[in-house]
Amino acid sequence: MKIKIGIVGAGNAGINIHGSALTAGKIPTSKSRFPHRSQSYDVEGLYEITGFYDISLERAKEAAKLFGTKAYDDYLKFLSSDVELVVIATRPHSTHVSLSIQALEKGKDVVVEKPIAMTSSEAQGMIDAAKKYKRTLTVHQSSRWHLDFLCVKEILKKNLLGRVQMIKMIKPCGEKSGGVLHEFGSHRIDQMLVLAGEFPYEVSAIMENPLAKDYSFGWFDISMRFKNAPPMEVGILPSEGYVFPCWYIKGEKGWWVQDWCDRTEDLFQKIQKKSRLGYDYLPEFLQVKPKTPSFYRNLYEVIREGKELMVRPEESRNGIRVMELAVESAKKKKTIKAGGINV
Amino acid sequence: MKIKIGIVGAGNAGINIHGSALTAGKIPTSKSRFPHRSQSYDVEGLYEITGFYDISLERAKEAAKLFGTKAYDDYLKFLSSDVELVVIATRPHSTHVSLSIQALEKGKDVVVEKPIAMTSSEAQGMIDAAKKYKRTLTVHQSSRWHLDFLCVKEILKKNLLGRVQMIKMIKPCGEKSGGVLHEFGSHRIDQMLVLAGEFPYEVSAIMENPLAKDYSFGWFDISMRFKNAPPMEVGILPSEGYVFPCWYIKGEKGWWVQDWCDRTEDLFQKIQKKSRLGYDYLPEFLQVKPKTPSFYRNLYEVIREGKELMVRPEESRNGIRVMELAVESAKKKKTIKAGGINV
Repeated sequence: MKIKIGIVGAGNAGINIHGSALTAGKIPTSKSRFPHRSQSYDVEGLYEITGFYDISLERAKEAAKLFGTKAYDDYLKFLSSDVELVVIATRPHSTHVSLSIQALEKGKDVVVEKPIAMTSSEAQGMIDAAKKYKRTLTVHQSSRWHLDFLCVKEILKKNLLGRVQMIKMIKPCGEKSGGVLHEFGSHRIDQMLVLAGEFPYEVSAIMENPLAKDYSFGWFDISMRFKNAPPMEVGILPSEGYVFPCWYIKGEKGWWVQDWCDRTEDLFQKIQKKSRLGYDYLPEFLQVKPKTPSFYRNLYEVIREGKELMVRPEESRNGIRVMELAVESAKKKKTIKAGGINV
Repeated sequence: MKIKIGIVGAGNAGINIHGSALTAGKIPTSKSRFPHRSQSYDVEGLYEITGFYDISLERAKEAAKLFGTKAYDDYLKFLSSDVELVVIATRPHSTHVSLSIQALEKGKDVVVEKPIAMTSSEAQGMIDAAKKYKRTLTVHQSSRWHLDFLCVKEILKKNLLGRVQMIKMIKPCGEKSGGVLHEFGSHRIDQMLVLAGEFPYEVSAIMENPLAKDYSFGWFDISMRFKNAPPMEVGILPSEGYVFPCWYIKGEKGWWVQDWCDRTEDLFQKIQKKSRLGYDYLPEFLQVKPKTPSFYRNLYEVIREGKELMVRPEESRNGIRVMELAVESAKKKKTIKAGGINV
């Protein structure tokens, strides 16, 4: 039985990311990117979009028309409809908390766009609400499905580099991106925590303007040490063009360098020729059809079949906690010892 | 009046680096690289090589023949000759200490190849001996004259990037270089300490096999925090080819990316096109003849005219101390708070 899904925020993310993915790219949106991606190959017939909510009725109507569904500018009316699952794809990110909690209170399951919240205690409040109302809460950490990341995971899983000694992940950004830590960091830090499988005990960071109250960091560079995982560095640094190798992984048996990439057709050409795993290495499962269920496939199986969530909200909260420790480190100009966190 | 100089160690460094530089490239040695470099354009007529010492008389004779001078395999006889200044260019590096101290005791000035010593307390012993016998002791930190480094110094000095927020310097190395920390680290760490102008208060490092007693580290990655200088990272990491930008400097006004380079003719082509200082930026003083006195020009002026040393042995000792803290950090898997050091 299809899940009735309502989208909150009729902007780029609501239309071009979630709307496009949920309809498996069948609706030609202006910037549909999902058909090319690994997140939307297995969702056909699983979802029915029952409405768009936006504070602008005009925007909501436009989106609703595109997808042949209803438009709302009254959040309570939207929540009182037959929608079962609510996607929060709004800006500013600070709106995620109250919109999510209201939906959970009304008995809806919730998908929230990254970053889950602006602080880890807000994120904890959302997790607590989901528990209280016995609803599913998950975060659209889409970069877990990026092909470069799946490739890196596969290399580590297959132990192709031997014991891994260090992982660096540095991506370029423009000179003035603004809000980079929450905007892009929420992808990259999440990836690192997934690879580590635990919370770091040391966090050291440098970033632009760590005292800014609007979180308008232009760039960051965060180092983490883990008990059972190799030390990791994750940075978004200004530099037009790819002067950084993006992924650099050093293991006892060799090293791996790879550019960022989220589309299958780009992966082959983006794998650096110098990687010490041989030329044109590509995990088998990426050469055919990805075997990992997509985000929305997994979510369907969670809600309808009681399977396990692939993106637990606690993981996203931990990512936000790392950001807080990174900001503290950058402010105090020293390495911060991170206390254990309840994962 | 020419300084009578004797070279200890008739190997590659003794012949191709020091012999070649002291004769301003006039003697065609097998691998003369100095004529191309900025260290040897102003030394003509300043030095007279009076002898080569080596534990192998045959090697000493070959070198002596090439440069038209005397050969020794008895260190005390060598020191009893009319040599005024002794260049220690021997391996293993652990021989630097006793050879230097013996020469200082005999009233000779001393140039020692990097690394000055294997431990900071050995280096301190050498400094103490120089003070006791009132002789000049300096270290051949040749990479201070590399053009990439002079370019970086110039950019910082002219404040072209505004307040500098971060400096990264990562060079590639082969998979199994061995002894990388002392062999190559003594160049790069020295450069970073010169840029900082002070000793770091935090050192955090990852390196291969930090427990090895033979210092056979294959690679390292060291982060440092300074009171009055931007945070710095200095690494030598395995990766054939230049997947790293080498220098990456982020300042408030822009960023600078540059490959490693020690020869003028390479500098133009090695400056990355993407640097935010405009295309083809090159400090004026590098486009004509370098204005910085060469290592041996400066040393001549120190010994004959009482000028100040450009490479103080205390600086090299500090570099060794950073290596010790880095090894401690890598062993203990945590950031080390570095106590103040007597600079």
